[in-house]
Parts: sequence; structure tokens; C-alpha cells
Amino acid sequence: MSALDPAVASRLKRNADGLFTAVVQERATGQVLMVAWMDDDALARTLETREATYFSRSRGEQWVKGLTSGHTQRVHSVRLDCDGDTVLLEVDQVGGACHTGDHTCFDADLLLGPDL
Amino acid sequence: MSALDPAVASRLKRNADGLFTAVVQERATGQVLMVAWMDDDALARTLETREATYFSRSRGEQWVKGLTSGHTQRVHSVRLDCDGDTVLLEVDQVGGACHTGDHTCFDADLLLGPDL
Repeated sequence: MSALDPAVASRLKRNADGLFTAVVQERATGQVLMVAWMDDDALARTLETREATYFSRSRGEQWVKGLTSGHTQRVHSVRLDCDGDTVLLEVDQVGGACHTGDHTCFDADLLLGPDL
Repeated sequence: MSALDPAVASRLKRNADGLFTAVVQERATGQVLMVAWMDDDALARTLETREATYFSRSRGEQWVKGLTSGHTQRVHSVRLDCDGDTVLLEVDQVGGACHTGDHTCFDADLLLGPDL
């Protein structure tokens, strides 16, 4: 696995744990599926393989999405935001993105409904 | 301004600074516009007024989006994710969402292009 391109690494703004935010959007529907964390190695692997790869804070290790569940994410594009602390992944999702089985992590808890 | 509903507050998982992530999506286009931070008061104000309200880490204060720039966000819906540390706002955006003038904070820096 290659290291992250230094030209990209220099534009990242990481938190105290060396992590940055990844927002994951489904290409076909535009739905925001989930939010996760990445470190440099996770981003490098994502860019190289197009397999969405994150950093699990609870397990303290790299996490290839779907490796266990089969609910993989094929990465179509990756964008970095204006202040360098968030990437936006456009993916093709296999199965549900959420560990609960829901399609997205935002399906279950509506705090404020449409302003009709 | 009312305090945040205790039933909502009890479901939030805040970081060490008392903040959680807000992902902001445009209703009309499905575009992810930006990612910001909220504290309980910012979420309470957002739910009560439908004016997107965040917490500025750099200024250390509440930030009503567009109050200075005029680039306001009218909030259509708010969802909390499965582990309680991210909210997803669906908004109607006036003007550009990004401080650079771009429509979204993800317009300028494409790290990986479409897999054609």
C-alpha cells in the first residue's frame, strides 16, 4: 500500500488524534449514508483501491467498510473541503450502510420534520 | 430561547468540547454543502427557529449561518444518526454555503475523480 500523496497530506487538517471526518453520500440516490473518521493511511487506501476505508476509533484500527458484513462501498469520487478537515465520498453502497441494518445511519431518528 | 428538549439531549454523544457534527445537505439538489459543529444551544435554536445555527470553534461562540453574509439556511428537517454524534440538516440555501463564495465547501478540491 502506498503512502498518502504528500501534496494531499499537506492540505489535510487533522484533529488531536490525527483524524479527519468523512461524509459518505450514495451516488445513485444522493442520500447521506453515514459519517466516519479517517487517518492518512485510510485515505491513501481509499484513493488507491476505491474501497471505502476508515479508522475505527472504538477499535483503534483501520476499518475496510464491508469486510465483515459484505456491505461494501465502491468509491466513485473523493473531495476535500475548503478548510481541509472533511472529505466527501461519493459511493455505490452494497446492502445497508448502517450497522443496524438501516440503509443510512440517519433513517431512525427524525428530530425535526418537514416545514410544510 | 428554549433549552434543548431533554429527550433529545439525552441521545446526543458530544466530544470532549461538548460538540457534535452537523452535515448540511441542500434540499433542492441533494448536494452536501458543508460540515460544521453544534453544541446543545445551537441545536435547540435550529430546531426552534429553523434557522441553521452552529458553534464556531475558532470564535468560541454561537454562529447563526448567514447573519453577516446573508447566505442563510432555512432548515427543512433534522435527523440524528445511529450513534448520536452527528445531525443531518436538510436546508434551503440562500447564496453560496462556503465562505469562499463557492456553492459548497467541496467544490474546489477533487482528490479522486469518477471511476469511468
